[in-house]
Amino acid sequence: MQTYIRVLEKPKLKNPILIEGLPGIGNVGRIAAGYLIEELKAKKFAELYSPHFLPYVLLHDNVAEVLKNEFYFWKNPKGDDIIILVGDSQAGDPSGVGHYEVVEKILDFCQELGVKKIFTLGGFATGEIEEMKGIEVLGAVNEAKLAKTYASAGVNFSDTASRIGMIVGATGLLIGLAKQRNMEGVCLMGETAGFPILTDPRAAEKVLQSLAKMLGVAVDLGTLDKRVKEMEEFLKKIEKMQQKAMKQLTTKEGEKLSYIG
Amino acid sequence: MQTYIRVLEKPKLKNPILIEGLPGIGNVGRIAAGYLIEELKAKKFAELYSPHFLPYVLLHDNVAEVLKNEFYFWKNPKGDDIIILVGDSQAGDPSGVGHYEVVEKILDFCQELGVKKIFTLGGFATGEIEEMKGIEVLGAVNEAKLAKTYASAGVNFSDTASRIGMIVGATGLLIGLAKQRNMEGVCLMGETAGFPILTDPRAAEKVLQSLAKMLGVAVDLGTLDKRVKEMEEFLKKIEKMQQKAMKQLTTKEGEKLSYIG
Amino acid sequence: MQTYIRVLEKPKLKNPILIEGLPGIGNVGRIAAGYLIEELKAKKFAELYSPHFLPYVLLHDNVAEVLKNEFYFWKNPKGDDIIILVGDSQAGDPSGVGHYEVVEKILDFCQELGVKKIFTLGGFATGEIEEMKGIEVLGAVNEAKLAKTYASAGVNFSDTASRIGMIVGATGLLIGLAKQRNMEGVCLMGETAGFPILTDPRAAEKVLQSLAKMLGVAVDLGTLDKRVKEMEEFLKKIEKMQQKAMKQLTTKEGEKLSYIG
Amino acid sequence: MQTYIRVLEKPKLKNPILIEGLPGIGNVGRIAAGYLIEELKAKKFAELYSPHFLPYVLLHDNVAEVLKNEFYFWKNPKGDDIIILVGDSQAGDPSGVGHYEVVEKILDFCQELGVKKIFTLGGFATGEIEEMKGIEVLGAVNEAKLAKTYASAGVNFSDTASRIGMIVGATGLLIGLAKQRNMEGVCLMGETAGFPILTDPRAAEKVLQSLAKMLGVAVDLGTLDKRVKEMEEFLKKIEKMQQKAMKQLTTKEGEKLSYIG
Repeated sequence: MQTYIRVLEKPKLKNPILIEGLPGIGNVGRIAAGYLIEELKAKKFAELYSPHFLPYVLLHDNVAEVLKNEFYFWKNPKGDDIIILVGDSQAGDPSGVGHYEVVEKILDFCQELGVKKIFTLGGFATGEIEEMKGIEVLGAVNEAKLAKTYASAGVNFSDTASRIGMIVGATGLLIGLAKQRNMEGVCLMGETAGFPILTDPRAAEKVLQSLAKMLGVAVDLGTLDKRVKEMEEFLKKIEKMQQKAMKQLTTKEGEKLSYIG
Repeated sequence: MQTYIRVLEKPKLKNPILIEGLPGIGNVGRIAAGYLIEELKAKKFAELYSPHFLPYVLLHDNVAEVLKNEFYFWKNPKGDDIIILVGDSQAGDPSGVGHYEVVEKILDFCQELGVKKIFTLGGFATGEIEEMKGIEVLGAVNEAKLAKTYASAGVNFSDTASRIGMIVGATGLLIGLAKQRNMEGVCLMGETAGFPILTDPRAAEKVLQSLAKMLGVAVDLGTLDKRVKEMEEFLKKIEKMQQKAMKQLTTKEGEKLSYIG
Repeated sequence: MQTYIRVLEKPKLKNPILIEGLPGIGNVGRIAAGYLIEELKAKKFAELYSPHFLPYVLLHDNVAEVLKNEFYFWKNPKGDDIIILVGDSQAGDPSGVGHYEVVEKILDFCQELGVKKIFTLGGFATGEIEEMKGIEVLGAVNEAKLAKTYASAGVNFSDTASRIGMIVGATGLLIGLAKQRNMEGVCLMGETAGFPILTDPRAAEKVLQSLAKMLGVAVDLGTLDKRVKEMEEFLKKIEKMQQKAMKQLTTKEGEKLSYIG
Repeated sequence: MQTYIRVLEKPKLKNPILIEGLPGIGNVGRIAAGYLIEELKAKKFAELYSPHFLPYVLLHDNVAEVLKNEFYFWKNPKGDDIIILVGDSQAGDPSGVGHYEVVEKILDFCQELGVKKIFTLGGFATGEIEEMKGIEVLGAVNEAKLAKTYASAGVNFSDTASRIGMIVGATGLLIGLAKQRNMEGVCLMGETAGFPILTDPRAAEKVLQSLAKMLGVAVDLGTLDKRVKEMEEFLKKIEKMQQKAMKQLTTKEGEKLSYIG
């Protein structure tokens, strides 16, 4: 079995733009792309399967489903049409082979559909939980001039190299390999704590705000805002617990020290 | 070398149903499928070899044999014929490539034979040794309606997603990938402790009871019952040893504490 | 690049028998096969290269050489001709893919040359350094009747399964996969300590004694005997050092105990 | 996707010689080859891409670039033309498959261009920071006679096997596999500390001195000299810090001992 795409419907698209949001740090890209699908009522038209995904099935209720990526489209009444790529998984192998195979397959498919612009969405780990207003979106491009084209969308294109250095997985490879096909590529990465279990709608909202500006598409972020508020509540609880734990720890350490001393 | 199937005999089968029981947690599936082969006096007709199995040979007395999977058939005088898949091994690589190759090869072969229904058998680890009567069989399907079709077989289809979340290996992939070929797929998983060395005939018996109901095939579980009793004796011994060890440990910990304090 | 064989010369061989001795536990097989090449003055006629060998070159003086396996032949004036396979390496990947590819390539080549019997040589680790006279050779076959055919060669075919259970790598796979090509396969394994740095000419001598009987070929083991004596000297030194270390350790432990107690 | 070479320009070259300097220990080869490109004003004419490189993109400012290797050429007015191979990465997989694929692709390409001599540049770790004047260059060849041909270039060809034993990665495989294509291969390795973060222009300068003699090409090492001086300053600082740390440590250990004793 090779990586393959199962086409459910062949939509006619006008200058389609690919937006990718696969699982990754803080699930930022996935949340952002998933939200976009809901808000725009985008329609699924293709699925990608790969032997490079991990060998298990996910259970939705009692229904087992093989890991897959999914393509949705949205016909933009006022501008270029949009394709959104989401999914359960990226390639699971530590070496490059699986990642390259899946990403090339995605690019082949997009090229056939006439895609010439790609936006990839992700998070990057800071190790800190920041205030909502302080969360930055860092940007990378696959051609220097693109940073100027999108300069006014509130994305920090200046510190990306010094703060990140590299972009791992599909989010990076998609724009890197798109260059050889003369496709424009922009990667937007929202700052997130990067704690393993914490999915981060706040970074996703920041990323979507910038993306909407770049695309000139109005996206109502109201529903995401609600999730962000729930998350902030959750973060406050965690913080309190941490403070409490810290206190106990310090006291104990103090006791220990006094005991040893 | 690619994964390949060596056909020993080409049986003519009537609406054949595949039952899979490969090695896995508690070896539940393997014991169940192996027992079925013995009870039904099923006949081997094909072997599967793969470079994705680990690179060693097993010794049966002094005879070295490459790892393989085996297909058996049983002609059902009163209903659909049955194919049973057992074996020494699943694919050994941690990434998906080997698993996908082997499972697709099995499905190709079954499709040629006219299989339209697949039952996969396995265990799932609870970390607890439960009473025989408390052992549940959880079920997963590859189409929602199948859970209703088989509702009366004593299988819990309601808690599978919340208690398991995913099914790893051939047991899951077989029904997941079967869906794309319009084959029905049901996975039955018996609760087992999941201790590495413990193969579990008790969970296997529970799985077989449900399977027999689903298939409408009478299977005499008498011989398996004997093994279950042996296992229960063994479990009692383990429990006693654990209690003894626990006692000693507690006392020692107590001594230590009093010594330190 | 695929695994390939570079043929240097095409010898005409009479019922050739393959003898394999690749690197492994105690390097028993490699020493035995290498000694055989020297004693019989066998001639190299082919080399096997594989991308599944590890990615480095070995230095012989200052000359860098890619890892390879080598085929030698010896024209037996009194019986069947002999092919000897030695080499720097077995496949380096932990999964089966590389091992299967290399072993199948060896079997393809041998089949073309008319090979119908294969002897593989190896060691198996006991964790103990035994007296020369106590070293046993365990045997495995790929057909039950072969154990009887070679019953009088001083090989223990009775305890192989219970003491080993499996044979890892080319030594096992060669005879396992040979069966499907109707080639006879016998594996001889000499008991060795299995310490990582210790290559073991003693086990190699025992293996060669049995092999010579099975083949009906006279092999002068005099030179190997010398190496065995050197090894025995070396083992005595190690033993003395161990006893010394043990003594010191015991005393120290005793001191510690008295100190704690 | 397979490893492939994207040709930007097809230069006509006169007896071209390949010089390779990819990332490795102390980045010695990469620095040396990179310096050569700058000094000779060599021109890029081809890029190599491979799915065996790790799955990430590097950021140069905000521009994301897929990992690649690059070929440069320099037309030598007084002798044979030169091709220089540099890059971001070697194959990333621990087994040989990726390394072999990339190296064979490089050799295919060089063979088409008429290359008959290959020089590979690298470092080898000594674990010691040595004085500049004491740094040796060890040499390996793919044919014994080459060590004599290049005897007067200040390279130690005598101790290579005893001090190194093997050469890992492209630096070794390129000359090892070149032999089968009747290409001459010489590997030059400069002694370097081998500390993970320390790139070593000093070993690179030594390697370049020997290479220039072998090629009969004048290379001005002035600019590299400056970097070497910066490095020596840096090494002095490290040494002072180490001495300081050592002193503190010894004192503390002393205190501890007196405390315990």
